[in-house]
Amino acid sequence: MYTADILKQELKAAAGEQMLDLRIDNVLLVNVFTNEIYPASIGIYNQKIVSVNSSRTREAREVIDAKGAYAVPGFIDGHIHIETTLLTPEALGEVIIPWGTTTLCIDAMEIANVAGIDGLLAMVKDSEKLPFRLYMEIPSRVPTAPGLETTGGVLGVEEVTQLLKLDASVSLGELDPSKVLGMKEEYLEKILASLGQRKICNGHAIGLETDDLNIYGAGHLSDDHESVYYEELLDRLRLGIMPLVREGSSERNVERLMKGVIEHHLPTENIMFCTDDKHVNDIYEEGHISFNIQKTIDLGMDPVEAIKIATINAAKHFRLEDKIGCIAPGRYADIVLLKDLHKIKPWMVIKDGRVVADENGARPCPQKAYPEKLLDTVHISPAFSAADFRLKAEGKRAKCRIISMIPDQIINDEIQEWMEVDHGEIHADVSRDILKLSVVERYGKNGRVSTALVKGFGLKSGALASSVSHDHHNIVVVGTNDEDMAVAVKELQRLHGGFASAKDGQVVDSLALPLGGLMSLLPASEVMERMNEMNAAVEKMGCPMKAPFMSLSFISLPTVPQLGLTDYGLIDVLGHKIIDLVIETE
Amino acid sequence: MYTADILKQELKAAAGEQMLDLRIDNVLLVNVFTNEIYPASIGIYNQKIVSVNSSRTREAREVIDAKGAYAVPGFIDGHIHIETTLLTPEALGEVIIPWGTTTLCIDAMEIANVAGIDGLLAMVKDSEKLPFRLYMEIPSRVPTAPGLETTGGVLGVEEVTQLLKLDASVSLGELDPSKVLGMKEEYLEKILASLGQRKICNGHAIGLETDDLNIYGAGHLSDDHESVYYEELLDRLRLGIMPLVREGSSERNVERLMKGVIEHHLPTENIMFCTDDKHVNDIYEEGHISFNIQKTIDLGMDPVEAIKIATINAAKHFRLEDKIGCIAPGRYADIVLLKDLHKIKPWMVIKDGRVVADENGARPCPQKAYPEKLLDTVHISPAFSAADFRLKAEGKRAKCRIISMIPDQIINDEIQEWMEVDHGEIHADVSRDILKLSVVERYGKNGRVSTALVKGFGLKSGALASSVSHDHHNIVVVGTNDEDMAVAVKELQRLHGGFASAKDGQVVDSLALPLGGLMSLLPASEVMERMNEMNAAVEKMGCPMKAPFMSLSFISLPTVPQLGLTDYGLIDVLGHKIIDLVIETE
Repeated sequence: MYTADILKQELKAAAGEQMLDLRIDNVLLVNVFTNEIYPASIGIYNQKIVSVNSSRTREAREVIDAKGAYAVPGFIDGHIHIETTLLTPEALGEVIIPWGTTTLCIDAMEIANVAGIDGLLAMVKDSEKLPFRLYMEIPSRVPTAPGLETTGGVLGVEEVTQLLKLDASVSLGELDPSKVLGMKEEYLEKILASLGQRKICNGHAIGLETDDLNIYGAGHLSDDHESVYYEELLDRLRLGIMPLVREGSSERNVERLMKGVIEHHLPTENIMFCTDDKHVNDIYEEGHISFNIQKTIDLGMDPVEAIKIATINAAKHFRLEDKIGCIAPGRYADIVLLKDLHKIKPWMVIKDGRVVADENGARPCPQKAYPEKLLDTVHISPAFSAADFRLKAEGKRAKCRIISMIPDQIINDEIQEWMEVDHGEIHADVSRDILKLSVVERYGKNGRVSTALVKGFGLKSGALASSVSHDHHNIVVVGTNDEDMAVAVKELQRLHGGFASAKDGQVVDSLALPLGGLMSLLPASEVMERMNEMNAAVEKMGCPMKAPFMSLSFISLPTVPQLGLTDYGLIDVLGHKIIDLVIETE
Repeated sequence: MYTADILKQELKAAAGEQMLDLRIDNVLLVNVFTNEIYPASIGIYNQKIVSVNSSRTREAREVIDAKGAYAVPGFIDGHIHIETTLLTPEALGEVIIPWGTTTLCIDAMEIANVAGIDGLLAMVKDSEKLPFRLYMEIPSRVPTAPGLETTGGVLGVEEVTQLLKLDASVSLGELDPSKVLGMKEEYLEKILASLGQRKICNGHAIGLETDDLNIYGAGHLSDDHESVYYEELLDRLRLGIMPLVREGSSERNVERLMKGVIEHHLPTENIMFCTDDKHVNDIYEEGHISFNIQKTIDLGMDPVEAIKIATINAAKHFRLEDKIGCIAPGRYADIVLLKDLHKIKPWMVIKDGRVVADENGARPCPQKAYPEKLLDTVHISPAFSAADFRLKAEGKRAKCRIISMIPDQIINDEIQEWMEVDHGEIHADVSRDILKLSVVERYGKNGRVSTALVKGFGLKSGALASSVSHDHHNIVVVGTNDEDMAVAVKELQRLHGGFASAKDGQVVDSLALPLGGLMSLLPASEVMERMNEMNAAVEKMGCPMKAPFMSLSFISLPTVPQLGLTDYGLIDVLGHKIIDLVIETE
């Protein structure tokens, strides 16, 4: 706890009456308030910057000679679903820190769907030991499709209000338009709870145009990270909905948006960066928020301006400018040293006044202990068997709704096809790439299993299963036959969650994701390696997808048109209701 | 209270499902996020902007045709001592509103010194009925000189913490450097209390240079309004201490500071405006925050940028950008219509969606009822008499410390002069303009009276008394003789506070300031007129000062060097101790 006594010690250090913990000499300080770059010496005590160019603070326990490197504030990711990386925060730290990200504003809605408040609290517990700063955007819609899916956790108004009171919370997490435009009381209460804590409300204004954006803004949604076109970004900014420009693994918006910003000389003081969903190997290879900055500089923006977008702008937006986003007294000593201001490849990264990465990479960050309960979240019904996947139908053939995947998109089309009925049952039809897709409830609540048909996976044999399955995170499984599907599901039961492939009644390969059935306890390098092996095995089974398990985890989403699948059944997304798989039989 | 049901109605209005209260058509909207100016129609419902250029919001109870006028956000004063105007907030509203100020962040430290928490709560009570928005900067140092003065109210850590929790509070009020650099626990606790509420801490970094500013910044002081030179402003901004550029009645900093900002192309996104202390007649004649904007535009800044300094910048700084500072959905409908963007003379001013001023001036704002206790704060000891002003000394003459006034400054010099001792008493010496200055305790606590000598008032006869007397606000009285001094003091007792002049044993003129002994209950126009009459009478008594009662109210300040005077006695300000008036006798 921050006490007057600690503050007094910090002031003493600032006054030169107390030895500094660290002094960084000989930097070129990039000042995000004045846009200046000038030589400086930075004094650090008790995690904080206590002086910049003070003649009083000369004594330090440790001194870094920065040899004229640029000192810029640590980068801030304004919106990230950390679970997408499949890593614990500790393991993720080792990947993002070398790229200079020192603060993540996480919307951990996946763990919330699995384990509710307990899951979120476990994520933030002891987070001060991480090599980055972790703030929470409190998930606003758990479950995402109330009444249409079983989840492990539920966050009602009371739970959200409780979470918003935590110091680690900075906002109400992204509210999708249907909740706001639908004017549903539960979500309006959550908005007011956030405002009541002087915290903001993150938006998710996908596809909205002016008229709807006005309603969204009137609902106090403060930002949006779904702009794809410059005109969308402009429209949002005009209405006071601040754009987070996203560069994730699939959604790559920086080039188009920032090009527009530069060409139109749009003021950037209200623009920020985020990654939203970015896979660990992409982060490892190309960078994290550093990549957003780099692309923006490469497009022609002045580096100081681009760095401000990644630092002070987000700090102010989340009302953290007294803590992060700049190199000034009173703020946490989160500092990135760069040898070249046009190449966002950090030479050294400092968080809380400790060096967390340098030329030799990240300092190791020990895995923390998670509650047993969070490591045991997969509870398939004991009665579960391959028979649960049977699709019964009458007559000789049945006209069925099929979920038709669109490559590299999470939306899908509904198509309708005639399927043969064989002894009262519909089977997968590999020749037409129509496979079975099932969701198996995994919270031990009701043992529901529902099955539909999907086109696009390309599997010639076997099955794939995942306990990552947005946003409810039951088990989703796709396959050419019921037996392999059951084998894959049972493997996930054994592993307490993860990814698995099966063929000819045997497990082909699997990766355990025991933390909530979402995240591995392995280091980043091992997870990356194992995923490459897993994907290679799936490719051999006929699937042409680059990231088949990722595609599997999104295909059943009950909130992305046109069709979804939950343990309740096939979902008409826009109609927000359960519909029949079979339309007619003959 | 803002409820989900109210929010729902607002969303319905935004969606065109509910009739607007007001629509303002045909404006040229000045967008503080994009720096654009474009034609717009603004929809207002329940005090809030619910739409801008939405095709859905067509029905409205009232429509204003702005005929192409510019619509800019209402102006924000980031730091004002409202009591300086001698007016109640209601009366002040009629003067500032025609100039477009729709939000005041007030540091009501004067009323706090008189009446503590009760005084502050009375100021904010029913403030939603005012024609401007009133936010509180919670006074951080009441009393200002603990242990050296008697005050009516005391705000300790507990009281400040309680006040910081109010929705109307936005910050901890200005902390002078001695409290921070002195690292006094009480003030550090108050700083932490403000941070704990996600609120900021206002600074008052008068005269500080880099080394001390570093300590100040490490103490989490967020802003400062005391820059006089551009280099001071730059120094503060570099260290993350945001400058409020002040234009008060005496402190006129806009020209020098904004000239520097313009010449050096300094980014303005962290610069704000304030008035600090501005007399009502100055506001009436030249403007309020509008005057800061006007001067800045006249110095060559683009009007949109200057308007941002007066609006969104302050809104963000105080973390109110979801409520004020821009014209966007979800924000309060505080809008100024201007016919010419280069002439900051509003055509129409709207607050909460109501027209509060137009070509015909401000709409009247009814005086609210104040608690009886606040109207009865002057309690002189029943034993008080002219004899209390006697200055006893031995011998024939005495060498005395004299408070020597410096024209147009609140600082003073200590000079030492020999005074005649007549029958064991020192008298005023009109021939050398050395008069008696006394402070009379007025809270009914101890009846203390202390007397010193002052040079500079120029009175040839009579006495002046004031119950406004910074920051303790006991009665301060200056005079050529004890009898007139006593008459003036007793007149203030009769009036429950105010200003009075007396001569030849009679009251010459007086103005009642019954609200805390600080503020009049009269309308602005009457107060201005009465002050002119009062000053004219004082001029006839030989005083050459333009604002003699103002000078009187500041001369005794125990926190401004070199000498101060409180009911405890003569104060050595830098030594923070009581000292003797008489140095030697012979």
